[in-house]
Amino acid sequence: MQKPLIFITNDDGIRSKGLRALVDTAKAIGRVLVVAPEAEHSGQSHAITTQIPLRLRKMQDYDSSDDVTAYVCNGTPVDCVKLGLTHLLSDKPDVVLSGINHGSNSSISVIYSGTIAAAQEAALYGIPSMGLSLLDYAPTANFSAVQAIGSDLIKKVLTLGLSKGICLNVNFPIMSLSEIRGVKYCRQTNGTWNENYDLRLDPYDGEYFWLSGSLVNNEPDATDTDEWALANGYVAVVPIQPDMTAYAELERLKAKWQ
Amino acid sequence: MQKPLIFITNDDGIRSKGLRALVDTAKAIGRVLVVAPEAEHSGQSHAITTQIPLRLRKMQDYDSSDDVTAYVCNGTPVDCVKLGLTHLLSDKPDVVLSGINHGSNSSISVIYSGTIAAAQEAALYGIPSMGLSLLDYAPTANFSAVQAIGSDLIKKVLTLGLSKGICLNVNFPIMSLSEIRGVKYCRQTNGTWNENYDLRLDPYDGEYFWLSGSLVNNEPDATDTDEWALANGYVAVVPIQPDMTAYAELERLKAKWQ
Repeated sequence: MQKPLIFITNDDGIRSKGLRALVDTAKAIGRVLVVAPEAEHSGQSHAITTQIPLRLRKMQDYDSSDDVTAYVCNGTPVDCVKLGLTHLLSDKPDVVLSGINHGSNSSISVIYSGTIAAAQEAALYGIPSMGLSLLDYAPTANFSAVQAIGSDLIKKVLTLGLSKGICLNVNFPIMSLSEIRGVKYCRQTNGTWNENYDLRLDPYDGEYFWLSGSLVNNEPDATDTDEWALANGYVAVVPIQPDMTAYAELERLKAKWQ
Repeated sequence: MQKPLIFITNDDGIRSKGLRALVDTAKAIGRVLVVAPEAEHSGQSHAITTQIPLRLRKMQDYDSSDDVTAYVCNGTPVDCVKLGLTHLLSDKPDVVLSGINHGSNSSISVIYSGTIAAAQEAALYGIPSMGLSLLDYAPTANFSAVQAIGSDLIKKVLTLGLSKGICLNVNFPIMSLSEIRGVKYCRQTNGTWNENYDLRLDPYDGEYFWLSGSLVNNEPDATDTDEWALANGYVAVVPIQPDMTAYAELERLKAKWQ
């Protein structure tokens, strides 16, 4: 049997340690095609590039294994997936992975995440996919527990499959493999970013702003959420889907607004 | 009673005709605060700016009415909403509007849309919101039917309200007011972008790509969808929500993957 084909991208860019960790994990399982952004694209969500031309460049020195091919793209994570699947491949890969992200994509952060948008884009092409994130923003983060548990999850996706259009949003607590209590399948926490703009003056007395903030968990007592799982030592796996319809509200509008 | 405060943004940028049309409609209903991107940001989805500082500049000449104040921002539509709500206002506006977009945001296009992401961002702040789009990409598009029906919808949101966290994705067919058959409350169509990258050579023989494609409706016979409504002469109103959890798949994973 031919080895499975694993397509990998991320939003931290081709040089990130998390991408390297995911490629090292994946090449022990199958053939790997990497198409990653040239630059950092955190917080780029489902953005696509339409105003400047896209470029794709093969990396000759990314990995010494014959099972790994790598390209770099000047676009967003979603551009990498679209261009890679459309232009570089004639057959669909067996799975698309995005990450390993440096930092959390749990709760409402999922909506801003370039990592998860890339995985979700692949699911729109009918390919099972998974975004992996570690709750550590440091460029030097230790990904060994993510690699061990992530490897099991990749194999599960390859053997058991996912329903069409579904992608997994997987977040890992900052813990060693022996400290992690297991994997929880859970729902997205209702959370809100409490925003705070840092107002500064440039050398010419012009005002500028930096976005900062922190996530507020609006349901801290709920035990079936990704935030609860992460706070209690579990890997949080949330299956996500692209239908944004608010069905309960739709029924309310049909009844009250006609 | 004080006039309602209407916050307006878009993704086509401060100079677009659609924004002007929405401001003209809104100022007949209440006080208006515009915070719009400097440049075009179509397809920017929920992208936020974290790598360059944000700037906010008051426009002295956007509108002659005392009820209209306008700012321009160098960021994305979502940045405009976050920065405007956090920095410019001490109280929440009564409604946030985004648009009028030049082009459709129905079906799966909603996931790429900067227009709808901006409206959804406001809903995350607990403010009722609505994104308005006309299925005409032309810069010179005629927005008069959108203005007439949109005005009614804005008043409905102000008087009847929306459930917390909900935003309305409203798309208008290219028709005159007398041709439009009414407003349909519907769900997001299951659709897929059929992508096609246009490969070209620059003057130095370097390859580059332009994204193009067309939307495929995967359920053309379903009559409760936004695509059906638009194709049959209706304004399509889809309530959307930020929880991306795939609940049916979650139950399947809990049963089969443990």
